[in-house]
Amino acid sequence: MSNLNCPKVTILRLGHRPSRDKRLTTHLLLAARAFGASSAIYTGIHDISMEESIKKIVRDWGGNFTTRYSDNYREVIKEWEGEIVHLTMYGLPIQDTINQIRLNNNSKLIIVGGAKVPRDIYEFAHWNIAVTGQPHSEVSALAIFLNMLNEGKMLNYEFPEARLKITPQKRGKLVEHKASNS
Amino acid sequence: MSNLNCPKVTILRLGHRPSRDKRLTTHLLLAARAFGASSAIYTGIHDISMEESIKKIVRDWGGNFTTRYSDNYREVIKEWEGEIVHLTMYGLPIQDTINQIRLNNNSKLIIVGGAKVPRDIYEFAHWNIAVTGQPHSEVSALAIFLNMLNEGKMLNYEFPEARLKITPQKRGKLVEHKASNS
Repeated sequence: MSNLNCPKVTILRLGHRPSRDKRLTTHLLLAARAFGASSAIYTGIHDISMEESIKKIVRDWGGNFTTRYSDNYREVIKEWEGEIVHLTMYGLPIQDTINQIRLNNNSKLIIVGGAKVPRDIYEFAHWNIAVTGQPHSEVSALAIFLNMLNEGKMLNYEFPEARLKITPQKRGKLVEHKASNS
Repeated sequence: MSNLNCPKVTILRLGHRPSRDKRLTTHLLLAARAFGASSAIYTGIHDISMEESIKKIVRDWGGNFTTRYSDNYREVIKEWEGEIVHLTMYGLPIQDTINQIRLNNNSKLIIVGGAKVPRDIYEFAHWNIAVTGQPHSEVSALAIFLNMLNEGKMLNYEFPEARLKITPQKRGKLVEHKASNS
């Protein structure tokens, strides 16, 4: 992850539908950021308001996570220089593969399905990886994958240029508001 | 987790709103099940169709995860015998506390916030725990918490009485359909 001098990680979220997925995709991209991805690309329907809510989080909480829309996942994949990992419950178990995936220091495109994953994604991916063979959520699958990929290093990562910073409390909330430069 | 002869884990999801949260709560409860919780209680608005979609997953994929509605989180908490953990970005870092939480072999109620978490939750909880101090998702926070609590043991857990079972594949999908008794 670029945040940790580790390989750059980009998320490719397929088939976003604003009407159904707005909050799920937002949660997915926030989990991506929190667990060390440096950017996300999404396909499906262009959703400026979803992009804006991610931008606002980045402004407040720091780092330089970026989001962009593409209308063509094949183009994104074709242009990608580095490894491609597709998260799917049908793939190989993460616990048997993550060390090997980590070893290769290339930048990584992590593909996360939407409603229906096109067949060719399974072929394009260097790795089809399952986070359990059970149905749960692309949000949990991605977070577990990234957290295992970077060996928990993001759990206490401090994002640069944050306006807001939490001081952990046993009870209640303590948020530091830093002076903003912009 | 009951699945692993470990402490029983129940999720308490606060403030479910079917109009906004249907898919998020569904994903949350599926992540709860996949990572070893034995049941969930939710407050907010009663949502039979969300409950049905969880039931269907359990029927197909095995185990005995159950979901029920309550209109009073204070009652759930008062009646709870065991530890109470509240997941909140304002709490103590998971990486500093999880070993201590795991040591106590009591059953655990894991409280997961909705739109606005009532102040008294922070007081009722024995532990207010942060999975990073960054905004992301209750789905990712819960999955990371449970996966750390049970030390990754659910990653290859086989649910009993499953009708569907995946055989991990390098590419493509292989699902075994077992004969059903019902």
